[in-house]
Amino acid sequence: MLEKRIILELQKIAGKDNVATERQDLICYSYDATQMEFLPDVVVFPTCTDEISRILRLANQENIAVFPRGSGSGFSGGSLPKGGGIVLVTTRMNRILRIDTDNLIAVVEPGVITGDLQDAVENEGLFYPPDPASLRFSTLGGNVAECAGGPRAVKYGVTKDFVLGLEVVLPTGDIITTGGETVKGVVGYDLTKLLCGSEGTLGIITRIILRLLPLPETRKTMLAVFDSIDGAAAAVSTIIRGRILPATLEFMDHSSLQCVEKQFSLGIPANAEAVLIIELDGDKDLVEKQVVRIGELIGPLGLISFKAAADAAEAEELWKARRLISPALKKVNPDKVNEDIVVPRSRVPEIIRKIETIRDKYGIPIVNFGHAGDGNIHVNIMIDRSVPGQSEKAEGAVREIFQATLDMGGTMSGEHGVGLSKSPYIPLELSREQIATMKAIKQALDPKNILNPGKIFPE
Amino acid sequence: MLEKRIILELQKIAGKDNVATERQDLICYSYDATQMEFLPDVVVFPTCTDEISRILRLANQENIAVFPRGSGSGFSGGSLPKGGGIVLVTTRMNRILRIDTDNLIAVVEPGVITGDLQDAVENEGLFYPPDPASLRFSTLGGNVAECAGGPRAVKYGVTKDFVLGLEVVLPTGDIITTGGETVKGVVGYDLTKLLCGSEGTLGIITRIILRLLPLPETRKTMLAVFDSIDGAAAAVSTIIRGRILPATLEFMDHSSLQCVEKQFSLGIPANAEAVLIIELDGDKDLVEKQVVRIGELIGPLGLISFKAAADAAEAEELWKARRLISPALKKVNPDKVNEDIVVPRSRVPEIIRKIETIRDKYGIPIVNFGHAGDGNIHVNIMIDRSVPGQSEKAEGAVREIFQATLDMGGTMSGEHGVGLSKSPYIPLELSREQIATMKAIKQALDPKNILNPGKIFPE
Repeated sequence: MLEKRIILELQKIAGKDNVATERQDLICYSYDATQMEFLPDVVVFPTCTDEISRILRLANQENIAVFPRGSGSGFSGGSLPKGGGIVLVTTRMNRILRIDTDNLIAVVEPGVITGDLQDAVENEGLFYPPDPASLRFSTLGGNVAECAGGPRAVKYGVTKDFVLGLEVVLPTGDIITTGGETVKGVVGYDLTKLLCGSEGTLGIITRIILRLLPLPETRKTMLAVFDSIDGAAAAVSTIIRGRILPATLEFMDHSSLQCVEKQFSLGIPANAEAVLIIELDGDKDLVEKQVVRIGELIGPLGLISFKAAADAAEAEELWKARRLISPALKKVNPDKVNEDIVVPRSRVPEIIRKIETIRDKYGIPIVNFGHAGDGNIHVNIMIDRSVPGQSEKAEGAVREIFQATLDMGGTMSGEHGVGLSKSPYIPLELSREQIATMKAIKQALDPKNILNPGKIFPE
Repeated sequence: MLEKRIILELQKIAGKDNVATERQDLICYSYDATQMEFLPDVVVFPTCTDEISRILRLANQENIAVFPRGSGSGFSGGSLPKGGGIVLVTTRMNRILRIDTDNLIAVVEPGVITGDLQDAVENEGLFYPPDPASLRFSTLGGNVAECAGGPRAVKYGVTKDFVLGLEVVLPTGDIITTGGETVKGVVGYDLTKLLCGSEGTLGIITRIILRLLPLPETRKTMLAVFDSIDGAAAAVSTIIRGRILPATLEFMDHSSLQCVEKQFSLGIPANAEAVLIIELDGDKDLVEKQVVRIGELIGPLGLISFKAAADAAEAEELWKARRLISPALKKVNPDKVNEDIVVPRSRVPEIIRKIETIRDKYGIPIVNFGHAGDGNIHVNIMIDRSVPGQSEKAEGAVREIFQATLDMGGTMSGEHGVGLSKSPYIPLELSREQIATMKAIKQALDPKNILNPGKIFPE
């Protein structure tokens, strides 16, 4: 519990209306998209950089933990106040400050909803590609802190690739800017990229300069059904080697197709072992030509069917199975352990087969789908935590899946981050020296460890 | 001077043939592309990571400065052994270890020449875009350490955007890897990007994992001559807003055109105020269409002439004026102070005019050309250091140009780095808190300050 005088001090800094201490309010900020829950002592909603600076100065002086939070949609517990302290919510700093149509730049506050920025720049004929599944409710500050990805990463890259500069409040309360409004810049260390994906442990992001692109002229969606996962994986390589880089290359494996078919009877063929949803964007003539070319390229790879949508309504229809996975999963089992491993693209079939072995060993359903173009697979281990032993089984399966992923030259997380949920596994992926190097940086910037303590590094 | 026992120890680690101590050898490693010169005590040519680790362990123990060096082609003195110590040259670690045509990855040692990698991957139908002017002699290790750019950065990004992972020897001698072979990965801090552009002050790069692309089908070069710098700048914006992203968008201002014309009489029109060299790459049909479209888009912008090359020979002809700048500059004055400022693209005309004012104020020739697409301008201040007062004039002009650049939201360096030559100006661009943050990271990783001391940060 925080002393009363700290609460009063926070109210003085941020205003009484921007400080919550009632239990019912605290509960709203105690969880995220994981199933973990930790009650904060107080929730503060600052409205400007200066307030955040003063809050961190206070916290530093008084040794109080501060947990930055956007919309709380994270999948790894990155914003959860484990151990208690101040949850600092950025949602009241939600202005789009500038869209520069000459230099293709947007400047935003951290609480702007990703989808809102996309709409705003598309109105200007521009394009902000990163598209995490949460884009209608997650904040750009959260996206930057976790380095969010999404389906379009295969062509456009992840959040980090669009962040040119930041304004950040350091754990000491000092305010710095990093990077700038130009794409090039090599003066000093790249603090911008260091902060992207640092999960709110090194500083609180208060302003973001984003790079934009011209909005592609057209978009075209295709659905390809394969009789083997190898065929689908070969299709991905063949398309890319054929000099076609789709905006998205999503896949669903046999387990996820079956799961959707069982619940929603979409008429997915029984011999469908994998599905690719391919989306092209760009010049209209080129896209039309590429659709034909993709059909030719993947035809010999065990293709069961191939459809290209004629319009947006048909495209939505092709996405249907993919969009129905989440509701379908809920009917398999109430609880989901959701991982987002990455392997080199060519090893997707190998890891899927390995996961099937692990599934059979533990006797729990595991459903895989994800971003085939960059080898990023969402592995959903479906359990019922009320059944004794299931949580332990899931844990065993996760550990084996991570180990297999790492053995194939992959990583435990492509876009969800480490947070609390993956930190126990960190020593599987990172060496003692790697962890020591990262901790040395954390220690240098946050000597009192007040900013988002307990995240990333195993305790 | 180093003690004899240190030299013997280095010989034991790297082999006698890989340690140079003779004055004539030391001189070869005392300079780079700047006009500065500092004699090292010893030059070591390690052939593997383990040797580098042992050298750094020794240096750390004995408090000896170590200066990593590739080909020594840097423009900011980043590899120069100011204060003396060990120059560690990576050119004997020059193997291309792997080109993975499925996952579009290359794994290389740091001493590989950039152009050699490009040739090797192009033989496989792949493409490594970063193209610093030095690519025929600079090393990939140096490119990563300085985060080299080049003309193609406007479409493809800089070196950093292609580095997926590294093996690095830390100043303590510890060996770590960073990143990996996948495009996505958010486990822990992004040490890869922190090391890119850190100018050899945080670790010595011993292995690099690079992302590749499929080789574009075709390439097309155009030359556009404008009657004003504003017209050329408007052309850049108009082309990009028109959804065409050229692979390169190089420009030459009036001063550089005059300079070339005076020396080589190419027939550049007297009213030519600016030239753009535009290169498109990609799908053949699309590129053809875009050439026509560019002609339409830029026609109304004060275009004097517009030529598209029919073949490689004609393309080379269009590049002629640009390639002749360097030899032409040598005839203006013997000494060149070469800066590489960046401003937001739309402010290129403004900074060029400002530079003209500064040129007139100091009465020294200043010639500008560079990468218009990303606002990165190479400013060449031509002086004769043997004339008393000229060095001081150049210094005054540089300071004013930097200040104007920063006032326009730009940066002092787009691709050359800070090294020794720009470190005195660092406080113009970075705040006390920014510098303190960077120094805290340096201190955390290199507490004894043995690795490339004296670089980036003002003493």
